[in-house]
Amino acid sequence: MTAPTSLSTALAVALAWPALVTADPLPSWNDGDSKARIIEFVERVTDPDTQDYVPPADRIAVFDNDGTLWSEQPLYFQFYFALDQLAARAEADPALLDDPLLKSAVEGDMAAIAEAGTEGLLKIVMASYADQSVEDFIADARAWLATARHPETGLAYTDMVYQPMLELLRYLRDEDFETFIVSGGGIHFVRAFSESAYNIPPQNVVGTTGETSYSLADGVPTVTKDPGILFIDDKAGKPVGIDMHIGRRPIFAAGNSDGDFEMLEWSTAGEGPRLGLIVHHTDAEREWAYDRDSHVGQLVRGLDEGPDRGWVLVDMAADWAKIWPKEPQ
Amino acid sequence: MTAPTSLSTALAVALAWPALVTADPLPSWNDGDSKARIIEFVERVTDPDTQDYVPPADRIAVFDNDGTLWSEQPLYFQFYFALDQLAARAEADPALLDDPLLKSAVEGDMAAIAEAGTEGLLKIVMASYADQSVEDFIADARAWLATARHPETGLAYTDMVYQPMLELLRYLRDEDFETFIVSGGGIHFVRAFSESAYNIPPQNVVGTTGETSYSLADGVPTVTKDPGILFIDDKAGKPVGIDMHIGRRPIFAAGNSDGDFEMLEWSTAGEGPRLGLIVHHTDAEREWAYDRDSHVGQLVRGLDEGPDRGWVLVDMAADWAKIWPKEPQ
Ligand SMILES: [Ca+2]
Ligand SMILES: [Ca+2]
Repeated sequence: MTAPTSLSTALAVALAWPALVTADPLPSWNDGDSKARIIEFVERVTDPDTQDYVPPADRIAVFDNDGTLWSEQPLYFQFYFALDQLAARAEADPALLDDPLLKSAVEGDMAAIAEAGTEGLLKIVMASYADQSVEDFIADARAWLATARHPETGLAYTDMVYQPMLELLRYLRDEDFETFIVSGGGIHFVRAFSESAYNIPPQNVVGTTGETSYSLADGVPTVTKDPGILFIDDKAGKPVGIDMHIGRRPIFAAGNSDGDFEMLEWSTAGEGPRLGLIVHHTDAEREWAYDRDSHVGQLVRGLDEGPDRGWVLVDMAADWAKIWPKEPQ
Repeated sequence: MTAPTSLSTALAVALAWPALVTADPLPSWNDGDSKARIIEFVERVTDPDTQDYVPPADRIAVFDNDGTLWSEQPLYFQFYFALDQLAARAEADPALLDDPLLKSAVEGDMAAIAEAGTEGLLKIVMASYADQSVEDFIADARAWLATARHPETGLAYTDMVYQPMLELLRYLRDEDFETFIVSGGGIHFVRAFSESAYNIPPQNVVGTTGETSYSLADGVPTVTKDPGILFIDDKAGKPVGIDMHIGRRPIFAAGNSDGDFEMLEWSTAGEGPRLGLIVHHTDAEREWAYDRDSHVGQLVRGLDEGPDRGWVLVDMAADWAKIWPKEPQ
C-alpha cells in the first residue's frame, strides 16, 4: 500500500524539482572554494535578514578588463588595433614613417617596440588615433573587432572573453549589482565593445583617458581625440578613476594583475562585507600561464598578499570548466 | 429618449475619466508652448510606432545644475560653502590669513573677492578643501547643507531646487530616460546632494573635477582632494565631460547660461529627434531676473541663437506655476 504512494510522491517531487531548485548561476565555474565564496558573498549581501545586507544602490561591482574579462596575451589586444590603424594611416600619410619608432611599429618590429618602453607604446597608440573624432575612432574599432583575428588562436578578439566572467557579471546584475569596467585600456576602445560583449553600457566604463576637445569641424559639432593623456587608469589611478566616474566605493572588485592592487585594496577596506577577486592565469593548455615574470599582467603583490587580505584567488585551470564561449578550431 | 442615454453615457465617461486620461506629468508647468513641446518630444521618442522612436538605452538627458535645477543668485551656492569651510579652517590654522585674498574671503569682503576674478575664486575654493579626503569633504558638505540658510530667502539651499524641473526629471525617468547632471560646479559638491535632492546617483553626476590622489593615510586607503584642477566642466568642456563620463550623445539637454551653449549645440546636432531647453530667469518677484548682463549665469548666445536652433526657451515667470517646493516664509 505504501509503495504506490511513495512512487507518486517521488514522481511529484521529480516533476516539481526544476521549479524548486535555483539554477546554478555560474555553470562554467567548477565546484570549489572560489565559486562557493562568490555565491556565499552574493547571497549574504542580498539577504535582507542578515546584518551584512547591502541595499541595491550600494552594490557596486568593478572589473578590470584585460586579463580579467578577456585575454591579454601575447600583447594587449588594443595594441594590435593601434598597429593596424597606424599602418593604415602610414599608407595615406607616409611622412609618419619618418619617425623611427612609428616605422618600426608599422613594420611589426616587436623588439624595437619593446625597447621603447611604456613611453614608446603610448606614442604609438596616440599616433594611431590623433585628431580623429571619437565617433570615427569607435566606428573604426568596431570594424576592426569584427574582422581582426588573434595571431595565435585565430579567434575574433571578442570571442576571447571569459565565459565564467560573463556568467559572474550576469549573476551580479541579476542580484541588483551595477557592474562597471575599470580598465587600464583606453576608455573609448573598451566602450567600442563593452555593451555587445559584456552588456556594460558606455557610461559604466572607466578607462585610461586621452585628451579630447570639442569644436566645430567644418561646422559639425565634434569631440576629437587629441594627443596627450588626461588620466591613466592603472594602479593608484584606479581608485581615483572610480571616485571620479562612480563616486561610490565598490563592494566587489575583480582584477588580475598588480595594476589592480590599489583598486582591490580600497574596495575591500571599506566598512561592511566586501569581496576582492584575482584571476590567476594558471592554464597554459587552454589559455596562458603567467604571473610574477610576465611583461603583460604582472602579478606579484596580489599573489603574496591577496590570500591574507581575504581575496579570492581564482585558479583558472582548476576553477574554470570553460575559458572562452567557443573553443579555438 | 435620447436624453437619458446621453446622460448615462456622459456619466459613464465622467466616471471612467480618471482612468482614461494620463495624469499631468508636469503639474507645476503652466499650459503653453514650453510644456507642450516637452511633452510632444517625449511622447514622440517613446512611441514605437513613430519614425522618431528612440530605444531606452539612447534616451540620455543631461541637466546643468546651477540656475537650471536650483537657484544660483546672488552667488553660486557652492561658494558660500567654500567661504564657511575656509573660515572654519582659518580658525584652526590662522596662518591661512597671511594670504590677503583668503583673508578677504574669510572676512566676507565680496568686493575684494570679485576683483580677484575666476582665478581668485578657484584659489579660495581649493584652499577650502585642500588635502581633505573625498569622504570627509562630502560629509562636510552634507552637514553644511543641512543647516546653512540662503542669505536672502532664508531657505535651506536644497529647498531652492526648482519644482518644475524636479517634475521634468521624474517624467523623463518614468519614460525610461537616464538623467545626468553636467555641472560647472564641483563634482563632489554636487554629489553630496544629487541623490537626495534630484534622485540622481553619484555615478550620474559630471562636474568640474579637482585633482585627487589615492594613498594610505595612516594605513587607511583614502582618496584625497589635492590642489589643482583636472578638468573644468563648462562651455566646450561640457561635451568633453559628457563624452568622458557618459560616452553617448544626449538627445535632451537643459541649461540656463552660455556655459551650456556647447552642450546644447552638440546634443541637438546629432541625428534623429533632439531637444534643447534653456531656463530663462525672468521672474524678479518669485526668484531673480537676469540674463545678458549677469555676473552669474550670463545668457547671451542662448537668447540670440536658441530659438532659431529650435531650443525651448523657458520663461520662468510665465511657464512655471511654482518655483521652489516650499515658498519662503
Ligand atoms: Ca588586467
Ligand atoms: Ca548654470
